[in-house]
Amino acid sequence: MVYPGDLKIFSGTAHPMLAEDIAEKLGIQVGKTVIKRFSDGECYVRFEDSVRGVDAFVVQPTCPPHVDKNIMELLIMLDALKRASASRITCVIPYYGYACQEKKDAPREAISAKLVADLLTTAGADRVVSMDLHAGAIQGFFNIPVDHLTAIPLFSNYFIEKKLDNIIFISPDEGRAKHTRQISSRVGAPLAVCYKFHPDHMETSISHLAGDVKGKIPIITEDMIRTGGSINECVDTLLENGCKPEIYVAATHGLFTGECFKKLDRPEIKEIITLDTIPRKENAPEKFKTIKCGPILADAINRIHSNIPMSSLFK
Amino acid sequence: MVYPGDLKIFSGTAHPMLAEDIAEKLGIQVGKTVIKRFSDGECYVRFEDSVRGVDAFVVQPTCPPHVDKNIMELLIMLDALKRASASRITCVIPYYGYACQEKKDAPREAISAKLVADLLTTAGADRVVSMDLHAGAIQGFFNIPVDHLTAIPLFSNYFIEKKLDNIIFISPDEGRAKHTRQISSRVGAPLAVCYKFHPDHMETSISHLAGDVKGKIPIITEDMIRTGGSINECVDTLLENGCKPEIYVAATHGLFTGECFKKLDRPEIKEIITLDTIPRKENAPEKFKTIKCGPILADAINRIHSNIPMSSLFK
Amino acid sequence: MVYPGDLKIFSGTAHPMLAEDIAEKLGIQVGKTVIKRFSDGECYVRFEDSVRGVDAFVVQPTCPPHVDKNIMELLIMLDALKRASASRITCVIPYYGYACQEKKDAPREAISAKLVADLLTTAGADRVVSMDLHAGAIQGFFNIPVDHLTAIPLFSNYFIEKKLDNIIFISPDEGRAKHTRQISSRVGAPLAVCYKFHPDHMETSISHLAGDVKGKIPIITEDMIRTGGSINECVDTLLENGCKPEIYVAATHGLFTGECFKKLDRPEIKEIITLDTIPRKENAPEKFKTIKCGPILADAINRIHSNIPMSSLFK
Amino acid sequence: MVYPGDLKIFSGTAHPMLAEDIAEKLGIQVGKTVIKRFSDGECYVRFEDSVRGVDAFVVQPTCPPHVDKNIMELLIMLDALKRASASRITCVIPYYGYACQEKKDAPREAISAKLVADLLTTAGADRVVSMDLHAGAIQGFFNIPVDHLTAIPLFSNYFIEKKLDNIIFISPDEGRAKHTRQISSRVGAPLAVCYKFHPDHMETSISHLAGDVKGKIPIITEDMIRTGGSINECVDTLLENGCKPEIYVAATHGLFTGECFKKLDRPEIKEIITLDTIPRKENAPEKFKTIKCGPILADAINRIHSNIPMSSLFK
Amino acid sequence: MVYPGDLKIFSGTAHPMLAEDIAEKLGIQVGKTVIKRFSDGECYVRFEDSVRGVDAFVVQPTCPPHVDKNIMELLIMLDALKRASASRITCVIPYYGYACQEKKDAPREAISAKLVADLLTTAGADRVVSMDLHAGAIQGFFNIPVDHLTAIPLFSNYFIEKKLDNIIFISPDEGRAKHTRQISSRVGAPLAVCYKFHPDHMETSISHLAGDVKGKIPIITEDMIRTGGSINECVDTLLENGCKPEIYVAATHGLFTGECFKKLDRPEIKEIITLDTIPRKENAPEKFKTIKCGPILADAINRIHSNIPMSSLFK
Amino acid sequence: MVYPGDLKIFSGTAHPMLAEDIAEKLGIQVGKTVIKRFSDGECYVRFEDSVRGVDAFVVQPTCPPHVDKNIMELLIMLDALKRASASRITCVIPYYGYACQEKKDAPREAISAKLVADLLTTAGADRVVSMDLHAGAIQGFFNIPVDHLTAIPLFSNYFIEKKLDNIIFISPDEGRAKHTRQISSRVGAPLAVCYKFHPDHMETSISHLAGDVKGKIPIITEDMIRTGGSINECVDTLLENGCKPEIYVAATHGLFTGECFKKLDRPEIKEIITLDTIPRKENAPEKFKTIKCGPILADAINRIHSNIPMSSLFK
Repeated sequence: MVYPGDLKIFSGTAHPMLAEDIAEKLGIQVGKTVIKRFSDGECYVRFEDSVRGVDAFVVQPTCPPHVDKNIMELLIMLDALKRASASRITCVIPYYGYACQEKKDAPREAISAKLVADLLTTAGADRVVSMDLHAGAIQGFFNIPVDHLTAIPLFSNYFIEKKLDNIIFISPDEGRAKHTRQISSRVGAPLAVCYKFHPDHMETSISHLAGDVKGKIPIITEDMIRTGGSINECVDTLLENGCKPEIYVAATHGLFTGECFKKLDRPEIKEIITLDTIPRKENAPEKFKTIKCGPILADAINRIHSNIPMSSLFK
Repeated sequence: MVYPGDLKIFSGTAHPMLAEDIAEKLGIQVGKTVIKRFSDGECYVRFEDSVRGVDAFVVQPTCPPHVDKNIMELLIMLDALKRASASRITCVIPYYGYACQEKKDAPREAISAKLVADLLTTAGADRVVSMDLHAGAIQGFFNIPVDHLTAIPLFSNYFIEKKLDNIIFISPDEGRAKHTRQISSRVGAPLAVCYKFHPDHMETSISHLAGDVKGKIPIITEDMIRTGGSINECVDTLLENGCKPEIYVAATHGLFTGECFKKLDRPEIKEIITLDTIPRKENAPEKFKTIKCGPILADAINRIHSNIPMSSLFK
Repeated sequence: MVYPGDLKIFSGTAHPMLAEDIAEKLGIQVGKTVIKRFSDGECYVRFEDSVRGVDAFVVQPTCPPHVDKNIMELLIMLDALKRASASRITCVIPYYGYACQEKKDAPREAISAKLVADLLTTAGADRVVSMDLHAGAIQGFFNIPVDHLTAIPLFSNYFIEKKLDNIIFISPDEGRAKHTRQISSRVGAPLAVCYKFHPDHMETSISHLAGDVKGKIPIITEDMIRTGGSINECVDTLLENGCKPEIYVAATHGLFTGECFKKLDRPEIKEIITLDTIPRKENAPEKFKTIKCGPILADAINRIHSNIPMSSLFK
Repeated sequence: MVYPGDLKIFSGTAHPMLAEDIAEKLGIQVGKTVIKRFSDGECYVRFEDSVRGVDAFVVQPTCPPHVDKNIMELLIMLDALKRASASRITCVIPYYGYACQEKKDAPREAISAKLVADLLTTAGADRVVSMDLHAGAIQGFFNIPVDHLTAIPLFSNYFIEKKLDNIIFISPDEGRAKHTRQISSRVGAPLAVCYKFHPDHMETSISHLAGDVKGKIPIITEDMIRTGGSINECVDTLLENGCKPEIYVAATHGLFTGECFKKLDRPEIKEIITLDTIPRKENAPEKFKTIKCGPILADAINRIHSNIPMSSLFK
Repeated sequence: MVYPGDLKIFSGTAHPMLAEDIAEKLGIQVGKTVIKRFSDGECYVRFEDSVRGVDAFVVQPTCPPHVDKNIMELLIMLDALKRASASRITCVIPYYGYACQEKKDAPREAISAKLVADLLTTAGADRVVSMDLHAGAIQGFFNIPVDHLTAIPLFSNYFIEKKLDNIIFISPDEGRAKHTRQISSRVGAPLAVCYKFHPDHMETSISHLAGDVKGKIPIITEDMIRTGGSINECVDTLLENGCKPEIYVAATHGLFTGECFKKLDRPEIKEIITLDTIPRKENAPEKFKTIKCGPILADAINRIHSNIPMSSLFK
Repeated sequence: MVYPGDLKIFSGTAHPMLAEDIAEKLGIQVGKTVIKRFSDGECYVRFEDSVRGVDAFVVQPTCPPHVDKNIMELLIMLDALKRASASRITCVIPYYGYACQEKKDAPREAISAKLVADLLTTAGADRVVSMDLHAGAIQGFFNIPVDHLTAIPLFSNYFIEKKLDNIIFISPDEGRAKHTRQISSRVGAPLAVCYKFHPDHMETSISHLAGDVKGKIPIITEDMIRTGGSINECVDTLLENGCKPEIYVAATHGLFTGECFKKLDRPEIKEIITLDTIPRKENAPEKFKTIKCGPILADAINRIHSNIPMSSLFK
């Protein structure tokens, strides 16, 4: 086993609670830092503990509401660690901002997800840990190793423990079908896929449902919930197809932007479960549940630090 | 207008006919080269015309049956052009090999589509022109400009001119639905989407068809046909849903590997139309039609050379 | 003369008025762009005009109050321009954020001014235009050409035209003395230097004034005013030394953060003149004057575009 | 001693037997991989054992008959190892393809040996081990460490053990003279040099022989035998100069392309000894002997892994 | 603790004595090298000890009189170490040549301090150790870690042990004031600052002195003494202000070029103390004292090698 | 034709006369520069003419006696040109220093010729022009275009015009034979090759001569003459073989280091002709003739500037 210096966890200001959770799980303290904003809004970073020769992990989801501040802060932390002789620097970015801009949909757009990858590498990142990236190709945007974790085991366990009768997992579109099948297979439940279909060249779409949800409890799975619009459409389709009005939604990343809480505030939705890859909003209604991702990240960090294979993590 | 030297077209050995088509359309000759293999299989390249200060375009689909030879030959051509002072080097790669390996589906795989992008840049490519890349994110694998052309206008025109009655465009899976809608919208015909659905955790899938094909002539659209397997499944589904047994298939890239010709040799398939992004196989049955992509590539090359916007090409 | 494509000016959202001024001076229109924020705060950029082969100038001071957003937006614009085949990309950053973090004052700090330089280069910048950088060494942080403009001619002309009697230029510290001498020399007036001096190892400093200000109108020159604190100390020293209670302050960059307006709201200060390298705050009191830097930037851009020497700009 | 993770040996498909030899010598197993070709000829690689933090050695001579496939496969393996967090990646390339294209002999050629070096580095190689490179400058094509082994000790021992009487070592041209002298010096035998000489500007050359071979058993040494042409000319010259018609040839790399076996099938040649840097051809006649290079490569790998000086390997 | 191989010290020809001092302090021998100049002046380097896997420190101030030779020799040593598989290469450059060219003072100058940083990184440096760099921003010219040591503790201790009565520390210009305050604060003595002031636009300057030196023993502190000109001016000012004619000068780097020894040969200067970051000149008069910097460099090297925080070094 | 800005020639201090010759031939003036050494030996460079957008050629052989100073000065000039917005920078290095260190002959040596190539590229070189590089592989050390000129046409013409009777060209070793044949073929004269041969494992060598020189006037051709040692040995061999005691030596680069002039001061040597790729030494005896290389370099520069093929230059 190669020993790349002592393991230290540092946190940006995006999600200090998560760093605490990870550190606690690992039985260590979050490293001391000074991170502040000057009166002109510029970010200042100083590490108060020595980082010389340490195996540094910086926890910083590049999430709303201050995506760009979170990214710049992370880059500045990387620069400081690099100059202070950290032996290896791993960015722990459970939610990777700009992931949806991973290809050009129109001429003269940026591919911002690639840009962010290049910026991280330029600033000094040696490795990245992330969760349920919006597109798998983002891993290829990096030439440094990316450990790509998934919430599948967490959601599977959640529903196994819940012991609901007569459930069915729902993929809200074909792209998500593969992930949904992996969950449903672990839980031992059937699945259905919801399709949006534009029969002619009009904009309005018709939703199809492949699979029988009649009388069943549907569990919609998603990678992220932004404004809640497409979840709502899927719920409508499920209800039209006779499911029980007791619908669960399980999504890795809960952004809940705009009027999302209001939109999803309908009685047929029983629970919305997300990981805390992004800090839980204070005004989140009670039925919005959060599963801690700290333990799985701590486990991954420990494996990276100790060169233990990651693949068993998913079994 | 910036004038980056005289325009010259060069061809690797993968598809010289295509380079000829392009050059003819541009009213020039394909540049003279010596490309040979030594007795040990190593590739030797020499440009016989001066390339000093020219705006060089190298035409080389990295296609079967000799993907790796085609890639290495292209890289060697780039190295020679760079050292011989070409002012700008554009790779014209209508079919981009290894495009399907654009993300990791299992641990410890390569992301070969990214690797190839890095190799091209290392060898000296300044720009890339390609067609209907398997995944849009591949554009982001490059930090050099990629002009990403599409066969949509060519296929649309083909079917407009064919004046078939009662047609319907078919996307063989949800991923292809967006492209299919763009074609159907140009042609002014309806569309249907075929879905593969795994109802439980078994491997066998059930195909769904969203849209009504009864009595209609279906036109399946795809980005590439490899062994023909998934086309065949789609054809079965269409027939089961009562379409006319007169099915067309339009795919940008015709690889036709393995037993493909035999598999698709069924009377219900009327025509299979592909572009010649890959050289037409000599043993291709007659119903395999080819649309020349030389003109659209020549047009793109001319626009690149003369700094004319590319977007109007798609209107 | 080399002609690097048509000149186009684009603007980020930091200071669109400045881009307008520059474009107007050059007799062209600011290029059309879509720059918006999604509900999750991520920035989206699309250029609506073709940029293929153009000599693109992006105007974006990376200034308060949203330094990080301005930087990220600029980087995304660079990425989009690069991928859309702009022939050359120049960042016009009249105020360069993070310039004060150009060296380490304590262990384990970042050198953020260098980081930003690396990020700009990574994203695709070919050149930079800036004004009165906080430290000259920042030019060396880049390996691309940096045209470093100065406000000296603008301030000199301002005071020559003002025809005040009995003026004296004041450098508020030794570091600024060289610039102050250049202005005073152009205007033909004497200068004095204010020094802060810590006689022992206590924190409190004593201000010294080298030069005779008795009965004179002092003009303090600075590179930037942030909270106004050190200007205030200098004003006190000047008054103690018997200057006329009619003090001018000329600073290139007016950040005016925190309680700055309030702090400087004292009758002895007659005028505070800054360039509009940063947008003028709406609540700025009347005695805060602004000199437009658009004309000098437009001139510099024209020279860069047409390969005309820049040095004559300073004569 | 620095310990860069556990040592693991992997093999591409070019020469699995060699990897087996090396692994056996090191007392370990060759690491499990899936390397296959899809129906379209694209290479697919997956490592089945964990490679996280290991000191990985990939054995792959980039040799005929499929030079380009072997190179691409090696590059893909490097990409996969890099992404899977190998701690260090060493390419073991006993025969380095394209080594003869190490300079431009005519305008507008490539320098393919440099290109391959750049490709390996781009794909993720940290180090290279090779044997008897055609030109020493190839080492300089890399900026990563290259351990350059030689067959000299193996050939010396072979002939010392053979105890032939009255032998003389022959360099077939001046370029090879230095290596030949090193062997002859170890064995304690004289040497002669064969020169090709073009007395005027005609193409035909006259062979000279410096040294007395009369009645002696000549041992020709070479770095590689390709088609056997120049070996044959040297044999002729030796026979004309009265050597015993019992000639040995010792060459590091036996490519034996084209009609080589037939050409060298003459009774005066007693034995042709090569290393197995390239897999032995099945149709090789019996007098073509092979010395295993696995042991020396295993020794080198062990020294690299354990930071033991390599130079003693040559004593 | 990460163990980056055995620690080895190597020396270029610029200052072998310093390397000896460092090695002795560390209880090891300076590594054996052959460094010679061919008849044409080219430098040849060979390391005689194995460097495979070692943590190599190369001691080479890039100092007069042969700055360029010292730089090139250092670069060649780095290249050789890199190719010979050193595990980490640290340049120990106590005096960093070209440090004064760290920004452009006129158009079309180089920023040579940045160039040298780029050259070192290109040649293979992994880290740098330096002392009292002329400008702190030079640290930012590197993207590798720079350990920036200071002579402050050495000079403080020197004067504490000297037990002079009634001393005052003098900063010869405002730029040096911060460093001087750090020394004076450690020693517990007051300080004064000397200012050069150009009252009008003439070249001649007037020197001001902030602080009271009457009857005191002044200790001027500087980062480097080149020709001695500005020291002399400062001495004049001090004497005019009534100090005791018993002046000390403490400067980190003693270049003493041109007529320096002659210029400073005046009775009022009692001692001139420099570190031996540059070899002591043989003709240096006796009052030029040297403090050995070997111990502090040895300490820093040990900390780097053993991952012990450096900051405590300054306490 | 692409027009990369106005052509300007600049000269370092290594060989200003050569730059004058080139400029005169091109009908322009050498650009004005300030190049000086400070008292501490550091080099200072400033270009006095604007270089914005120009096609800059810097003439600087990196030759004795101050190889390292010449290299550093060239690098600093490149840095200044790059920062001052030259549109393209070509290094004209007729004699390339460190060319003989192009491979490792012993463990732990540098490959300095590669290092210099990397340094030039790092500092900002876009292209290189050189003459008769010691090893062709050096061209491969660069990834920028290298125009590699040869003295063959100049020497051929020299001897054609001289109209000597009964001449024979001599290659002093096999490595040079190819070049010698190219000259002899142009002149229409025979050639002979001199070989050094070590018959056993002793150090002393015997020289062989392949070809008949009896009664002929020999013309030895070489790429460079350093100390004259091997020329002298060759002369001895020629005389022993009965040539006329009227020997000519034609070498591209005349370094003439050490006791060279004295060594070659023997009556049998009639003339030693070199190009002025290196400045002629003042104490060179009369029989050391110089052919100007300015015209051929001027021609090459003109072709590079105007994108005219270079190959015709050699016909």
